[in-house]
Amino acid sequence: MQKPTIPKGMRDFGPVEMARRNYIFDTIRQVYALYGYRQIETPTMEQLSTLLGKYGEEGDRLLFKVLNSGDALRDLSDEELLERNAIHFANKACEKGLRYDLTVPFARYVVMHRSELTLPFRRYQIQPVWRADRPQKGRYREFYQCDADVIGSTSLINEVELLEIIDEVFRRFGLRVRILLNNRKILAGIAEATGRGDRLIDITTAIDKLEKIGEEKVFDELRSKGFTEDELSKLRPFLALTGSNREKLTQLKELLATSEEGQKGIEELEYILDHIDLLDLKAELVVDLSLARGLSYYTGAILEVKALDAAMGSISGGGRYDNLTGIFGLDGLSGVGISFGADRIYDVLLELGLFPSEAEIGTQVLFANFSEEDAAYLMPIVARLRREGIRSEIYPEPVKMKKQMSYADSLKIPFVVLVGEEERATSTFTLKDMQSGQQEKLTLDALISHLSAQH
Amino acid sequence: MQKPTIPKGMRDFGPVEMARRNYIFDTIRQVYALYGYRQIETPTMEQLSTLLGKYGEEGDRLLFKVLNSGDALRDLSDEELLERNAIHFANKACEKGLRYDLTVPFARYVVMHRSELTLPFRRYQIQPVWRADRPQKGRYREFYQCDADVIGSTSLINEVELLEIIDEVFRRFGLRVRILLNNRKILAGIAEATGRGDRLIDITTAIDKLEKIGEEKVFDELRSKGFTEDELSKLRPFLALTGSNREKLTQLKELLATSEEGQKGIEELEYILDHIDLLDLKAELVVDLSLARGLSYYTGAILEVKALDAAMGSISGGGRYDNLTGIFGLDGLSGVGISFGADRIYDVLLELGLFPSEAEIGTQVLFANFSEEDAAYLMPIVARLRREGIRSEIYPEPVKMKKQMSYADSLKIPFVVLVGEEERATSTFTLKDMQSGQQEKLTLDALISHLSAQH
Repeated sequence: MQKPTIPKGMRDFGPVEMARRNYIFDTIRQVYALYGYRQIETPTMEQLSTLLGKYGEEGDRLLFKVLNSGDALRDLSDEELLERNAIHFANKACEKGLRYDLTVPFARYVVMHRSELTLPFRRYQIQPVWRADRPQKGRYREFYQCDADVIGSTSLINEVELLEIIDEVFRRFGLRVRILLNNRKILAGIAEATGRGDRLIDITTAIDKLEKIGEEKVFDELRSKGFTEDELSKLRPFLALTGSNREKLTQLKELLATSEEGQKGIEELEYILDHIDLLDLKAELVVDLSLARGLSYYTGAILEVKALDAAMGSISGGGRYDNLTGIFGLDGLSGVGISFGADRIYDVLLELGLFPSEAEIGTQVLFANFSEEDAAYLMPIVARLRREGIRSEIYPEPVKMKKQMSYADSLKIPFVVLVGEEERATSTFTLKDMQSGQQEKLTLDALISHLSAQH
Repeated sequence: MQKPTIPKGMRDFGPVEMARRNYIFDTIRQVYALYGYRQIETPTMEQLSTLLGKYGEEGDRLLFKVLNSGDALRDLSDEELLERNAIHFANKACEKGLRYDLTVPFARYVVMHRSELTLPFRRYQIQPVWRADRPQKGRYREFYQCDADVIGSTSLINEVELLEIIDEVFRRFGLRVRILLNNRKILAGIAEATGRGDRLIDITTAIDKLEKIGEEKVFDELRSKGFTEDELSKLRPFLALTGSNREKLTQLKELLATSEEGQKGIEELEYILDHIDLLDLKAELVVDLSLARGLSYYTGAILEVKALDAAMGSISGGGRYDNLTGIFGLDGLSGVGISFGADRIYDVLLELGLFPSEAEIGTQVLFANFSEEDAAYLMPIVARLRREGIRSEIYPEPVKMKKQMSYADSLKIPFVVLVGEEERATSTFTLKDMQSGQQEKLTLDALISHLSAQH
């Protein structure tokens, strides 16, 4: 008989992990809903024509492709088969692929459902995605994304609210975070001011390493890419910016005085800071000119979130983009969105002990089972507790008490109820606290209010 | 530019559908948890070796297979390619397939995690499954299953509790249902009593049609399958059983007097009825000897649920099985489980108008946006409402009021708050009820308590 396994890079989630994952997803769901974001779901499979060419060559390679049902080789000639061209073969034998991210399916959704949508459309989506990446620590072939986007509105109120959402989610998790803020228009302004508006990516890639390798090595890298000393000297003041967010912006305003795009970026950042000041954010908000993620699609605000008390990369991020649905022929839909990295948040909450205890999410009380008649006596009582919302179990077999107790122990059930002859005669219930070992005798009403109070 | 589509038999779920689907899934989740069932999730993809041969030949054909990454043709010789044998080809080019149901992955999970599990193990699982079936009305290629099973316990308390779960779920939905109950051992007893214990399936398949085609046609069918008149005359009394559940059992006891297995089945059914009598079930419970689902795996109780007020097939079902994990070499794990048909429940709740209104699940209040300064004034107030748990939006642009009102209308947001100069001067808020059209001026505290009370 085969010993079963699961595909590499994929995971089973047991009850304890699931309770924690649900805690994360439910929290994010609730906060998104509080801000008017509405959930959608798209199918696990998309047409390969929808997915191909959207994630670069690397992305195309990492798509999981689903073999056509029936005769998958139908559209391939003998010559094509013997050519053994993997890409050509897959294109002819597979017309469907697994969702690679939530953005392309969202864009596809918006185009297909355009006539039913009321703009601005705030949507959130929490679903798994699949990538045929080489599995490694912390990187899986199946993982969840938790995206929220609003499209059809260019108002910066949306950016402010998305920052509030991030703040509220991590506040509920009890996790201290720093939100890094930048704007692609400022980065473009910096490239323009150095005289190399055409080399935005080279410049930002180099700046990104400033903290790690220092200014001189950053300059060496740019020299090797053909930047002149004059250009580098124009770049230097940007790297030397210090002080508070406002002080940085004041200096930037002067340095970017001649860049219209740069000034626009500063204005946008200022709007966000001005409005965040009116609100009671717990997260630290830091303008960081080295933040340069998603430059192939972000056109305005760029943001990223780091945990303050754990060594972990970005746990959330997002930004403003200009044209979500252009790839499907529908132009002009600007949007801004964020995403939470559920797997990383899971690891951080676990490391810092921030998950609710199992006692808070699992079964609250186990009724011990001494005999068949005992069980019949207890079943209506257990039903009553459940009707009161108390998560309750009755041990199904009248086995040895030791086994029933060890069941409660291993499932971390905090209370066990024992009902013997005496209890039945007096309509009472002996409640045992599994942590302290203490027992007390209670009436049914007292039992219910005791267990309800645990929540 | 391509006009995007989605694969046939698959669906997008928009915000309204998602809210309703979440209502179904959340209700089922909550009730499962109330009875000590704990959630697990397994990966979307399983090894094909785990899936193949578990669902019959038809099932093997309906599995979605995932093309191996990299060179999928690696393990195929030129001769094998030119043979064009679809099944052989798929076996060599694909090692993974999509989950076809939740039972086989659960069995695989139990075997792989055997050492971590505490028995009895109550698990529930709510995940999509995929079948390359011909799509038709009400049948999809991607759909959710909602299973709960307890394994490692033969106690009939489990059957009773699963009936309570079904009752509680439909009670929460406000849906009147009838639960049909049978026992495979009774069916075996009937086959035995007719002298054809070897023809259980033929007999039950024919009995199943009794209501539709009548006794004579049922007998014709059995005659054509080689049953003798003597055998049919022994079967006749079983078809003539009438009366209450208890009356049926009394008659059965006599008819099956000589069948040990039949007597065991009656005992099991009696245990369930006796204990259900102690509880306050709302659902109608009917012993139905023609119920014969899942006979290839059920060994004890068999149950099925029908809605009383809608023409729809079974909306839930389940039963007791003897050997969940035998297919993976781990024998002796008996279990009993149920499953809810989410898509059918969705259709029934929609038809009967039993879903909560959108106002109860979506945004509760929209703050109109008259100007940039207005928005800045409102943002901390909206933040305050959200902190109170009120799902709130501020319209992001100061566009024409008509557009903002029509946004609230189309999203069925029940209240709009209007704040003009006068309101600002007096720190009040004009709350407009979108259904009645009535307006009233409120303080912030009054606004919050008014909106909180809506829930």
